[in-house]
Amino acid sequence: VSFSLEDLEKIVASRAASGDAQSYTAKLFARGMEKAAQKLGEEAVETVIAAVAHPPKGLISESADLLYHLLVVLRLADIPLSDVLAELEKRTKETGLQEKASRPKD
Amino acid sequence: VSFSLEDLEKIVASRAASGDAQSYTAKLFARGMEKAAQKLGEEAVETVIAAVAHPPKGLISESADLLYHLLVVLRLADIPLSDVLAELEKRTKETGLQEKASRPKD
Amino acid sequence: VSFSLEDLEKIVASRAASGDAQSYTAKLFARGMEKAAQKLGEEAVETVIAAVAHPPKGLISESADLLYHLLVVLRLADIPLSDVLAELEKRTKETGLQEKASRPKD
Amino acid sequence: VSFSLEDLEKIVASRAASGDAQSYTAKLFARGMEKAAQKLGEEAVETVIAAVAHPPKGLISESADLLYHLLVVLRLADIPLSDVLAELEKRTKETGLQEKASRPKD
Repeated sequence: VSFSLEDLEKIVASRAASGDAQSYTAKLFARGMEKAAQKLGEEAVETVIAAVAHPPKGLISESADLLYHLLVVLRLADIPLSDVLAELEKRTKETGLQEKASRPKD
Repeated sequence: VSFSLEDLEKIVASRAASGDAQSYTAKLFARGMEKAAQKLGEEAVETVIAAVAHPPKGLISESADLLYHLLVVLRLADIPLSDVLAELEKRTKETGLQEKASRPKD
Repeated sequence: VSFSLEDLEKIVASRAASGDAQSYTAKLFARGMEKAAQKLGEEAVETVIAAVAHPPKGLISESADLLYHLLVVLRLADIPLSDVLAELEKRTKETGLQEKASRPKD
Repeated sequence: VSFSLEDLEKIVASRAASGDAQSYTAKLFARGMEKAAQKLGEEAVETVIAAVAHPPKGLISESADLLYHLLVVLRLADIPLSDVLAELEKRTKETGLQEKASRPKD
């Protein structure tokens, strides 16, 4: 794929900074963290419902909404996506080690 | 960053397929979509609380949990992350066009 | 108080049955369980945010929304509120007994 | 019904005040609003899943959990249940009036 979550992160940052009155992202930033977190929670509810009620219908679209709003929340908190990915990488390694340790002959 | 969400997607797929009784991912897959979706919803609640109550404390960790469980749900529904990213790319372009169209002189 | 949750349950049932095109409740029923459950989830997100971000501001209003949508979901599933209260009563007694049993001299 | 939400409210208040180390309610109060709100959010997720995935199975139990944790959150915010019921009564009347006004011949 050419498009990555990092690409979306850059677009979110750029639109947030634009103050463009036509931009949904800019408007969401203007409303602040509480509203952005609420939207994140709502998209999570819709993702959960799509997942259990009729997968895979709707799940691509709801997951996209969820990822977008997560990036908005992270930006509002001044957290780069790379920090979250570094945390995920760290856990993956730890889990790998734990799994290794727990198996007799590996 | 060296570590990407696509890397995590591969690890999730590999552990899901392993059936390793020590792997949290394998155990989550064995319990099925309803449990995975519940975990996704719970991590979203924790992300929302971290975002509004005490950002940025806890937000990196909760966002990591949320992304991981989203990848588990997508895998259970046989949806590749690239489909979600393609959807995000499409929307970004549409929004760009809409924003352009709505501004008189661009 | 004169007004009880049982009173609201009766009003919800009556409006659901009315098919009144002006009634929010009737419209919600027409859209079905998935939409009602989504609204329940969204109101829960708002209740959580009001609780952690700025209590008690907004918490009365969000709790009212949450209770109303819970009654809608219960009605759609043909579950009387009295069944839920009976379950709560049962647990309360069990917990009481457990607490008693765990204290040496009570 | 003999058991009401007001009865549960009194039990929650009494156990919260007890400081009893064996009481789940007392322990939840000791952990504070953020934890109580998290539990409320988690129970809402489970209620939503029970509602859309396999109603009515599990819905009585999850609704009971949700109501209990809502009462805990309200108590932590010093909001009496009667305030929430008064809000619900007020809305019900307003909606009734609106519905009346919107219908030509009532």
